[in-house]
Amino acid sequence: MSADELIYSGKAKTLYSTAREGELLMEFRDDITAFDGGKKDILPGKGYCNCCVTAFLFGLLEREGIRTQLIGKIDATHLLVRSLQMIPIEVIVRNRAAGSFVRRYPFREGDTLKPPVCELNLKDDSRHDPMLNEDITVALGLATKLELREMRSIALRVNRVLSAHLERLGIVLADFKCEFGRFRGELLLGDEISMDSMRLWDALDRKSLDKDVYRYAKGDVMEVYRSVARRITSGSCG
Amino acid sequence: MSADELIYSGKAKTLYSTAREGELLMEFRDDITAFDGGKKDILPGKGYCNCCVTAFLFGLLEREGIRTQLIGKIDATHLLVRSLQMIPIEVIVRNRAAGSFVRRYPFREGDTLKPPVCELNLKDDSRHDPMLNEDITVALGLATKLELREMRSIALRVNRVLSAHLERLGIVLADFKCEFGRFRGELLLGDEISMDSMRLWDALDRKSLDKDVYRYAKGDVMEVYRSVARRITSGSCG
Repeated sequence: MSADELIYSGKAKTLYSTAREGELLMEFRDDITAFDGGKKDILPGKGYCNCCVTAFLFGLLEREGIRTQLIGKIDATHLLVRSLQMIPIEVIVRNRAAGSFVRRYPFREGDTLKPPVCELNLKDDSRHDPMLNEDITVALGLATKLELREMRSIALRVNRVLSAHLERLGIVLADFKCEFGRFRGELLLGDEISMDSMRLWDALDRKSLDKDVYRYAKGDVMEVYRSVARRITSGSCG
Repeated sequence: MSADELIYSGKAKTLYSTAREGELLMEFRDDITAFDGGKKDILPGKGYCNCCVTAFLFGLLEREGIRTQLIGKIDATHLLVRSLQMIPIEVIVRNRAAGSFVRRYPFREGDTLKPPVCELNLKDDSRHDPMLNEDITVALGLATKLELREMRSIALRVNRVLSAHLERLGIVLADFKCEFGRFRGELLLGDEISMDSMRLWDALDRKSLDKDVYRYAKGDVMEVYRSVARRITSGSCG
């Protein structure tokens, strides 16, 4: 494998090989999509915001003892990351009922979920990311019961660290999505944690501070992304 | 509460009060429905078949030590049952991939699931019976984690007893649905186990021997129901 070879291109990020084995370059592009790719746009500066916030939050999580894919930040839109064998599951942690959750179940938007609710979805746009349970995940050969237990436990720790950090900034972490991958026998937090993957509400007026602004055309997406990136990182992004 | 008062009327069964506290009369009607009630018919003799098969299979399960709602059979279409506080969850056990399962996940129709897959669905036609997981079930206040563990364990025992019985008769139990209720601090198997709630295939030619004949218009529904009822009960029904 030579350096800079394209390894994988997703909806908003691209992975390239590097000269070092087991290390990849993760590029955050300006593409933004919603509704299983049904809505798409390019928003200049969006890749920068999500790259910066992901690097900041993965750093915060690492300092709390949670192992992530991140090695370091290369430039405005590129991270150097460990090359994981990704598990095609979205682990969602919900502190508040919102979005698809209130459409599917008899909760009201904003209901507090205490303890938080953990959910597994299969990453499969053509099937609209169907929800999984432990048995189905194991039957599909996606992960072992032990890995599922560890993913759940890490996701709930991530939730505690992120919720506490955001709460101090007057931001409610309504829910977020995370992904995991295997690296030399260990399960690491991978992918990104950004305004694309967290549902964030201003604690004062419950205004959306995340991709819902794009999904439901609630305002100037990049203005919100830049301002929340600054807020989350105490000014180091945006 | 006076005797013979209507307590609950579902899509295919009606519950009436009796003169004895804690006991109800369960009537199996000739109504048959599919697709969340989108397809409906009345098939004379259908209530008789399902009542007879449920009484037979609940008896079989009781003899294997699985406690059920059944007290006794009253007549061709009525069972005397314990009055349970029903938990509005469908517990589905799958030995083979079929139906909605292959539409939702990358399995092929007929794939063997070993160990069997257990699934929880919320009983809510207006929401199309969405799938639950443990966290969501607990957050909705439907059952405790302990009850969920017990429901799963009983459902898997039911699966072993039914699969073994049907296998001897040349019938594959592809999947089935069961429901549970609380009775004086105990969790009992309730509702029915019949051609409406099991997916049955002839082991020789994999022909449907259940409600799929009605759902997908595969033949004479009552001819199939009568013949499989006879087969399951060694001639005591049908």
